[in-house]
Amino acid sequence: MQLGRVIGIAVATRKDEKLVGSKLLITQPISPEGEFMGAPLITVDTVGAGVGEQVIYVTGSVAARAIPQDHAPVDAAIVGIIDSIQCQVRKE
Amino acid sequence: MQLGRVIGIAVATRKDEKLVGSKLLITQPISPEGEFMGAPLITVDTVGAGVGEQVIYVTGSVAARAIPQDHAPVDAAIVGIIDSIQCQVRKE
Amino acid sequence: MQLGRVIGIAVATRKDEKLVGSKLLITQPISPEGEFMGAPLITVDTVGAGVGEQVIYVTGSVAARAIPQDHAPVDAAIVGIIDSIQCQVRKE
Amino acid sequence: MQLGRVIGIAVATRKDEKLVGSKLLITQPISPEGEFMGAPLITVDTVGAGVGEQVIYVTGSVAARAIPQDHAPVDAAIVGIIDSIQCQVRKE
Amino acid sequence: MQLGRVIGIAVATRKDEKLVGSKLLITQPISPEGEFMGAPLITVDTVGAGVGEQVIYVTGSVAARAIPQDHAPVDAAIVGIIDSIQCQVRKE
Repeated sequence: MQLGRVIGIAVATRKDEKLVGSKLLITQPISPEGEFMGAPLITVDTVGAGVGEQVIYVTGSVAARAIPQDHAPVDAAIVGIIDSIQCQVRKE
Repeated sequence: MQLGRVIGIAVATRKDEKLVGSKLLITQPISPEGEFMGAPLITVDTVGAGVGEQVIYVTGSVAARAIPQDHAPVDAAIVGIIDSIQCQVRKE
Repeated sequence: MQLGRVIGIAVATRKDEKLVGSKLLITQPISPEGEFMGAPLITVDTVGAGVGEQVIYVTGSVAARAIPQDHAPVDAAIVGIIDSIQCQVRKE
Repeated sequence: MQLGRVIGIAVATRKDEKLVGSKLLITQPISPEGEFMGAPLITVDTVGAGVGEQVIYVTGSVAARAIPQDHAPVDAAIVGIIDSIQCQVRKE
Repeated sequence: MQLGRVIGIAVATRKDEKLVGSKLLITQPISPEGEFMGAPLITVDTVGAGVGEQVIYVTGSVAARAIPQDHAPVDAAIVGIIDSIQCQVRKE
């Protein structure tokens, strides 16, 4: 599970029928300190997240468990909205 | 789920029998701004995508859900064609 | 399975209902020598780990097997607490 | 699914019993232009590929679908042999 | 499937009950030429591998198939011990 910030929305009219009705949000991975890390991805929203919010997202086959449709071809889903992070200072 | 641009076609006559009839497109991962990012991969097309189009693709075991054959050895599939992207300016 | 050090806690009130009751720990991947490597992730704790402890975590769909809820959208879980590491000197 | 070139053979007498009879080929990921990219991996061959051939391989749990044994611990398999690639010039 | 060299042992008394009895080996990914590549990981041994041996390991959900316990939270397992590698000279 990763931390991310929702930074946009993707619209796709032609898509797999099991994705109809899913909100496709562009999520930027972030560090615990909120810094952007790596490449953004498209996540299905399942918790009512909006642009600008910090979220928890999952990837891989378990992401499909978060949406109501069975057997949807979904590999990334937002499963929580971050209230707060408590984190030690990191030295890399 | 990732953003990509279809950049080519792969032809393979000898292949797993569960792949017969699948269109194999070469997809280049792109950023929300359309810039090429990372290495291209081969994706099975399930939505009628063509070379030059911006698409959404999934990877991993869920990709096989997008194609009609059961239990096909497919780990990447195009599941949508992008109409538009609304995205905040990113600072990396 | 990876080595990590628990470095923080994430709190999310709005989340997938199958995550209710799960403790979400921020885990920093580490080398066998204890050095920080790569980006931290959020892991569900299943063994009573605390901040500062060295742990073993798993990622992907098997992580969900470590928690009591069935079919939870979990892709990272702490499955052990490290007592000791015996490791050869590495040259990279 | 990725493009690769078969560059070698691995021999392992002591191995999981579900791997007995599987041909283990060393495959180097390549770009659509045939350039080596990233680190080689071991793939189970299911289509009669030989050293020097360009192939399509899959990774993850779907790879096990390509081989006859059920529930084999296989995470990479060659599923096709490339006849030709048509690809746009890429700018990275 | 990847090539690796076993470089150490991890001991964890507190762990998921489905991991009890599993030997946890630290494995360093290596190239076909035996050079260390990337970060070490923890692998469950299923073939009697020892420190210093070259092995084949798998990652992801299929790794759990190599161990006797059902539904164990295991994402990396050694499934073979390398006898020999025949590999072309690589230019990267």
